[in-house]
Amino acid sequence: GNAILSSYGTTIFEVMSRLSEEHGAINLGQGFPDDRGPADVLEAASKALLEGWNQYPSMMGTPDLRQALAAHGKRFYGLDVDWKTEVMVTSGATEALTACLLGLINPGDEVVLFQPMYDSYLPIVRLAGGVPRFVSLKAPDWSFSRADLEAVFSPKTKLVLINDPLNPAAKVFSRAELELLAEFVQRFDAFAVCDEVYEHIVFDGRTHIPLMTLPGMRDRCLKIGSAGKTFSLTGWKVGYVTAAAHLLQPVAKAHQYITFTTAPNLQTAVAYGLGKEDAYFGGLASGLQGKRDRLAEGLRSVGFDVLPSAGTYFVVADVSPFGFDGDDEAFCRHLTAAAGVTAIPVGAFFVQDAPKTFIRFCFSKKDTILDEAVERLRRHF
Amino acid sequence: GNAILSSYGTTIFEVMSRLSEEHGAINLGQGFPDDRGPADVLEAASKALLEGWNQYPSMMGTPDLRQALAAHGKRFYGLDVDWKTEVMVTSGATEALTACLLGLINPGDEVVLFQPMYDSYLPIVRLAGGVPRFVSLKAPDWSFSRADLEAVFSPKTKLVLINDPLNPAAKVFSRAELELLAEFVQRFDAFAVCDEVYEHIVFDGRTHIPLMTLPGMRDRCLKIGSAGKTFSLTGWKVGYVTAAAHLLQPVAKAHQYITFTTAPNLQTAVAYGLGKEDAYFGGLASGLQGKRDRLAEGLRSVGFDVLPSAGTYFVVADVSPFGFDGDDEAFCRHLTAAAGVTAIPVGAFFVQDAPKTFIRFCFSKKDTILDEAVERLRRHF
Ligand SMILES: CSCCC(=O)C(=O)O
Ligand SMILES: CSCCC(=O)C(=O)O
Repeated sequence: GNAILSSYGTTIFEVMSRLSEEHGAINLGQGFPDDRGPADVLEAASKALLEGWNQYPSMMGTPDLRQALAAHGKRFYGLDVDWKTEVMVTSGATEALTACLLGLINPGDEVVLFQPMYDSYLPIVRLAGGVPRFVSLKAPDWSFSRADLEAVFSPKTKLVLINDPLNPAAKVFSRAELELLAEFVQRFDAFAVCDEVYEHIVFDGRTHIPLMTLPGMRDRCLKIGSAGKTFSLTGWKVGYVTAAAHLLQPVAKAHQYITFTTAPNLQTAVAYGLGKEDAYFGGLASGLQGKRDRLAEGLRSVGFDVLPSAGTYFVVADVSPFGFDGDDEAFCRHLTAAAGVTAIPVGAFFVQDAPKTFIRFCFSKKDTILDEAVERLRRHF
Repeated sequence: GNAILSSYGTTIFEVMSRLSEEHGAINLGQGFPDDRGPADVLEAASKALLEGWNQYPSMMGTPDLRQALAAHGKRFYGLDVDWKTEVMVTSGATEALTACLLGLINPGDEVVLFQPMYDSYLPIVRLAGGVPRFVSLKAPDWSFSRADLEAVFSPKTKLVLINDPLNPAAKVFSRAELELLAEFVQRFDAFAVCDEVYEHIVFDGRTHIPLMTLPGMRDRCLKIGSAGKTFSLTGWKVGYVTAAAHLLQPVAKAHQYITFTTAPNLQTAVAYGLGKEDAYFGGLASGLQGKRDRLAEGLRSVGFDVLPSAGTYFVVADVSPFGFDGDDEAFCRHLTAAAGVTAIPVGAFFVQDAPKTFIRFCFSKKDTILDEAVERLRRHF
């Protein structure tokens, strides 16, 4: 097999989900909600399936979804987006990321990555021949400095990949941090691939600021979103990229050979969903905020040190208080088998200087499940 | 943008479909049926959507579909397939191909390709750093010889990519041809990626022979199939790969970062569909055979030289009788604008020695549409 890809294991999310299932554990590992998603969005998908077009749509996406995405950019971020040339639908945000990286990178190009990072980033950057340059964010505030950026940006920098809100750290970058990053992107004439799949999942009155909305950044950013996350339907695998036409075009060249297109009935349902009232989007965040508080409090009561969570489905807990001296993945395997609760080792999001005592819990679950998980952990410790 | 991918244009299928729409032409270009697909399969998808799981399934595919794929291999080809380790579901056969190529090829590996070839093959082979070696099949029988294989296979050959039934040539390879190819694959210790998306669309009593079923080939082949083609639902983008575990594993390493997984309700519906009675599969081929005859006869009556079609959705016609002296793409553009009928230039499937006078028509359309297309062509010529 390909030497780069073969050097990576099976994705930690699949590994831990399989293990969780084997042990009949409560799976707070892989990030997905356990509810049914909005009934009206499901109905829209069913209607489009039974009455609509089930043959290839345009490789750029169905016109209804592309129009809805442009309207979504205007409504939430004041962005003016041309739906015909600046939006592309992909088979999930994972494909969007891969299409951006394969479509933009040439061998030897440098790519700035922030650790912790989602596990598909580095393998695809390397497959594309990109040279990764890492900025390490450190708990508990996961911040970075001007000096950190000075150390990694260079005239060879082609792009920076940023995930905001940040999985697994549950950080939402501040405007000041984004401005600093924008300054470097512009100074080095680079691009930014912005994985913003949790754009609607931010807490405590925060607002998500797309990097694309900062001065000078409109035509340097590729903004990636996910219907899976925005409509609690992670299995649908409908993602999207918004970018200036000159940036989107090379990405479309990758997309056309990766998946070409995505089921049109799901696209039409997502188009419908994006038009839902403000209460839907606000309710998504506030519902998850309540779950975050419920799980965080439970974990604290069991003895975990719980880090702040400003967005995403996740909360990170420090297991040092339990004096476990294996590594974090061993701890998560042990917890699955012995306590019946699955989490994800945060070390899996690092390539160097990985923390050893952080594990990530997903709280996008029914309250009864969260409570049962906490009780299982309490019994175990 | 990436230099390799940027050197290719927008896929000819998208280009011609857009042009067709602009001109209100009858689109016999891009290969898709214009019927609704089997009602019971649509119902199964709707039921799974409204009542089933819409979160991430396993990255290998839903168990029901993987089991159905193993059973399909047994039922049609006598293959014994372990559904747990030898089947993987992808977001369409296009993704399956890309995952196979990116997952298996290392830079410098040689890849044997047959011209004419589907337009995603070469860009992805090159993106993976593969070195293409071409065998040119020549009309009207699109055959190849021992000498052709001697010229391209070498100790560096990593894999051969074969499309059987062959789009756009509408050829079904003979057992003798497949045996010859199998001999070379084994002699050079190579693999075969077998794009068999039209496996159920073969005519005149032919049977499709998966290369995988030949002696010595079981564990050297990656067999790719497509629900879109088998159930006339090309927009669903559900594909699959069947291969020995040691071959599938590196491909899964690519898949997990390309799309990770595919909508579970569509997978469940395809699982249902694969269990349909023999009459369904037979009816698919016989229905399309009738359409092939209808269109071929119509084209002949207008003056085209029509080549034989043994399988696929397609028939190739030679336009030399009309004395057109542009190239085939120019001819297709002209036909769309002036006659209101869209076809695909066969030259788009070649990188060298492209024929100039062949165009491909898709006949998986309502009879009334085929008849109207022929009438339009008759009026035009
Ligand atoms: C590809 S499954 C991963 C889901 C996810 O985003 C996460 O758990 O971090
Ligand atoms: C990616 S659309 C192409 C459809 C098809 O297989 C063809 O027309 O050959």
